Amino acid sequence: MSAAETPVTAPSRRSRITPEREAELHAAVLDLLRDVGYDALTMDAVAARTKSSKATLYRQWGSKPELVAKALRCTQPVSLGEIDTGSVRGDFTVMIEHSDDDQMAKDTALIRGLAHAVHESPALHKALRELLVDPEINGLQVMLQRAVDRGEIAPDCPALDFVPHLLIGAFIALPLIEDRSVDRSFLGDFIDAVVFPALGV
Amino acid sequence: MSAAETPVTAPSRRSRITPEREAELHAAVLDLLRDVGYDALTMDAVAARTKSSKATLYRQWGSKPELVAKALRCTQPVSLGEIDTGSVRGDFTVMIEHSDDDQMAKDTALIRGLAHAVHESPALHKALRELLVDPEINGLQVMLQRAVDRGEIAPDCPALDFVPHLLIGAFIALPLIEDRSVDRSFLGDFIDAVVFPALGV
Repeated sequence: MSAAETPVTAPSRRSRITPEREAELHAAVLDLLRDVGYDALTMDAVAARTKSSKATLYRQWGSKPELVAKALRCTQPVSLGEIDTGSVRGDFTVMIEHSDDDQMAKDTALIRGLAHAVHESPALHKALRELLVDPEINGLQVMLQRAVDRGEIAPDCPALDFVPHLLIGAFIALPLIEDRSVDRSFLGDFIDAVVFPALGV
Repeated sequence: MSAAETPVTAPSRRSRITPEREAELHAAVLDLLRDVGYDALTMDAVAARTKSSKATLYRQWGSKPELVAKALRCTQPVSLGEIDTGSVRGDFTVMIEHSDDDQMAKDTALIRGLAHAVHESPALHKALRELLVDPEINGLQVMLQRAVDRGEIAPDCPALDFVPHLLIGAFIALPLIEDRSVDRSFLGDFIDAVVFPALGV
């Protein structure tokens, strides 16, 4: 295995700090990310803000992209695949209710900053896709597959492939077009107006 | 009128250089924008690359945000409002055909960089919305209103308000999710799978 193929996760290294301390470090990384952006976020700054040694940070996470991706992963309040209300409308409603507006504004800032950063950093892009984007998309697909299995969505519905693009796209497009962040109300209207009709629900 | 309300366009200043020279300067600004991003783009760099004086640049455009917004405006090959084939499917087809894949990849890079920059620079956001985003959205609305008038789309169709979000969102979400830029083929599939069903077309 070449260096480029080294997995970004390294579970064996993860037991050296407590879960509480890990959550504290992740929160500090996200605060820094919102304050200064990905490019300006340094391991030195993380170490200073969290009163850790850089050696601890590197031992625990391996690299800055991995640390950022892990921290982002931990902001997700619920895995979409675990939402199972028995109807696709119910599932999307729970998805919206699990995020409050403040959280969505922060998510918007993060997605925007990262959309920029992933272009500059292939390592961040790889870590983000493996740790954040792919699991969320997989969870969404599990949720949608159950709707297909129940007969709510046609198995060959072409919009099934585009639901992740619709949701992520809305978070980035709204601030550009209307100068505001996505909130529950917008997301609910957007899903009703676009996602459900496209899925034939 | 306060300084903050000064219009970003100043037509009376625009006659001092030839249209050819203006197009040359706009192209140079876009090249720089792709190479270094908005933050690192300086009027000094534009002056150096175009062999102009900074005084000329400021006299002609007033400010960096205005220069960038004007340069972007000039990349649009056609105003959407002018597309009028007699059917909404035909109009979207022409819209796609007017952009080649290379142009779309460049547009993706610009939109991504700008989604980041508009957050950092209220002046750029204002200039972009007035000169680029609003005219495109207005053009799209003119195109869609004709479809409503022809009876192709219901006048109260809730998806009408979200078409700009869908198109801009797709350009930003696809590179994040699938690590590739929007091309004609993707855009055609996306419009068929999502935009037309949502509009009830």
